[in-house]
Amino acid sequence: MVMTSGQAMQQALALADEAACAGEVPVGAVVLDEQGHVLAMARNHVEEQHDASAHAELLAMRQAARQRGSSRLESCTLVVTLEPCPMCAAAITHFRIRRLIYGAYDPKGGAVDHGPRLFHRPTCLHRPEEVISGVREREASEQLRVFFRALRQRG
Amino acid sequence: MVMTSGQAMQQALALADEAACAGEVPVGAVVLDEQGHVLAMARNHVEEQHDASAHAELLAMRQAARQRGSSRLESCTLVVTLEPCPMCAAAITHFRIRRLIYGAYDPKGGAVDHGPRLFHRPTCLHRPEEVISGVREREASEQLRVFFRALRQRG
Repeated sequence: MVMTSGQAMQQALALADEAACAGEVPVGAVVLDEQGHVLAMARNHVEEQHDASAHAELLAMRQAARQRGSSRLESCTLVVTLEPCPMCAAAITHFRIRRLIYGAYDPKGGAVDHGPRLFHRPTCLHRPEEVISGVREREASEQLRVFFRALRQRG
Repeated sequence: MVMTSGQAMQQALALADEAACAGEVPVGAVVLDEQGHVLAMARNHVEEQHDASAHAELLAMRQAARQRGSSRLESCTLVVTLEPCPMCAAAITHFRIRRLIYGAYDPKGGAVDHGPRLFHRPTCLHRPEEVISGVREREASEQLRVFFRALRQRG
């Protein structure tokens, strides 16, 4: 299956919705290769898998690498609905993702444009060549707002 | 199996040796519960699993959480031979590890006592209560030095 990065974000938003329905924080991610082939798609699975590291983008990168038979995703694009946390941002450098496209900004938990801004550190060896932030930001943020509001109300 | 944290570091060093023999960067990790029961042990598996996130401590925490049926390892100790990178340091906060004990310092790649020093950031919500750094540092560093020297010589 071939997708543009816009279609991949649409798909990631749909995966995030699916996560919310399953009681998971709504985040979805897609990995595309250089021709736009979908290598992997994933959503958050922290609660269901009892795995605090089962963030959408980490699962998607692991799947994509398995699919390729290589831990290096050097020519690939990662599309994700939320700004990656430090764990996922560092994983993006370990997997050598070429391009990162993300939706909602995360001033508290993000590590790309906020907090430790990992790709800007001098010791970061394999930062993505390109980062596009805030794509469909309003929808991606709204999914998260609705989810956390409902969580607080259930309290 | 019950271990002291010293025995766990001994075990982690042995796992790191095993990693080196398999061509993996020599890092080993053990997770203990509050009574010192071993919940999980792991070594690096990046090359063999084609998974750039398959660092010893991340694998050990995921195993321990599966074992417990909970993504929270709130009362647990993580013993690892090398200072965790930003990915693993952030995962330590996601899994809510109570105590971190590590061996070799990593001024370039570490994120606990070097670089972004993630546990010291104001947005870090679940930092470990206790961090003990540099335990058996000389042996842990030596394993890494020997491994990377041999790698350079093989070219």
